[in-house]
Amino acid sequence: MTEQLVGKLRSDARDNRDRIVEAAREAFASDGLDVPMREVARRAGVGLATVYRRFPTKEALLTAAFAEQMQACERVLDEALTVPDPWAGLCRAIDKVLALHALDSGFARAMTAQYPRVFDFADGRDRSLRKLLGLMRRAKESGGLRPDVVLEDVVLAMMANDGIRAESPELRLAATRRFAALMLQSFSARPVPLPLPPAVRLPLTVRA
Amino acid sequence: MTEQLVGKLRSDARDNRDRIVEAAREAFASDGLDVPMREVARRAGVGLATVYRRFPTKEALLTAAFAEQMQACERVLDEALTVPDPWAGLCRAIDKVLALHALDSGFARAMTAQYPRVFDFADGRDRSLRKLLGLMRRAKESGGLRPDVVLEDVVLAMMANDGIRAESPELRLAATRRFAALMLQSFSARPVPLPLPPAVRLPLTVRA
Repeated sequence: MTEQLVGKLRSDARDNRDRIVEAAREAFASDGLDVPMREVARRAGVGLATVYRRFPTKEALLTAAFAEQMQACERVLDEALTVPDPWAGLCRAIDKVLALHALDSGFARAMTAQYPRVFDFADGRDRSLRKLLGLMRRAKESGGLRPDVVLEDVVLAMMANDGIRAESPELRLAATRRFAALMLQSFSARPVPLPLPPAVRLPLTVRA
Repeated sequence: MTEQLVGKLRSDARDNRDRIVEAAREAFASDGLDVPMREVARRAGVGLATVYRRFPTKEALLTAAFAEQMQACERVLDEALTVPDPWAGLCRAIDKVLALHALDSGFARAMTAQYPRVFDFADGRDRSLRKLLGLMRRAKESGGLRPDVVLEDVVLAMMANDGIRAESPELRLAATRRFAALMLQSFSARPVPLPLPPAVRLPLTVRA
């Protein structure tokens, strides 16, 4: 084979991989994590065999699809751990993680799903959750976080965040910001005024 | 026609109606409010014409499908309005309404959906929300509810509640109870210890 042809084949292979990962992200977001590999292949415009050659398991595909988001999530937690006031760090982390999830429902579900076979993905997730737990411990010691709030409460907030719907990504993000503020209010040992006016627009004739 | 035959036809018609309403409830819960009338007919095992003869519009079907839940919702609010301490009444109402929604995702979505054409349904919904708003006003006056919490925050809690998933209806309800307690904590002008241990079971190796 000429060098040019080898280069072309490599570039095609890379294009295929990118297309599959992109299609998987979209499919997970719209159809949930149980979407068949067949559907991912259809969306990517490649054969099913190509998908399996690249990603032998659903877990491998899930890990690849959410690699960037998982890294972003870990970065948020690492940054939060450097904030001198642990409660301020925790507030920032929860606000940012819920915002990340609001923009990618597939990732949000993957972070909270019962998906015991997802070894690689679960590793990344557990790493993030361990950091979150460390942050919570420090925030409790500093007196900012209520002692009776547990890790499961933050995960419950992540799940609940995924139930929020809005007409546009901007409104969705604004609603999630308000929701994060409400949850942090609940977690706080020292309640403060809510920071934002409500962002969710309702189909109501009823007004406060 | 004999009286017997008339009776039989009436009973068949009633059976059909019940089957359609039951199928619609299931379809709304699993496929969302945009589920086609065709799919409702398929699930009910009747012809599409039969569905349209009974329910000329999606709104009529939605109203019939959730009539009981809507009445239950209003009853909860009416009862809450009789509680002498308005904040205690509001807490009870929010806990019970979120529990009703946890057991019927279709109804939960209908309560918070942007669905401007659903006149009949929206009437019932607005009536409930007006009662909720009255309860909130009284709870603010009594000093129990924070003054910066608005009706939209409670609707945001309803939407978010719909994002919670669990392995069984029992665990789902337990998770919703914890979530309701967290939201009420956030809404409260005077924070108190959280009433329950966390109910959500996580797929984590991480433990607090």
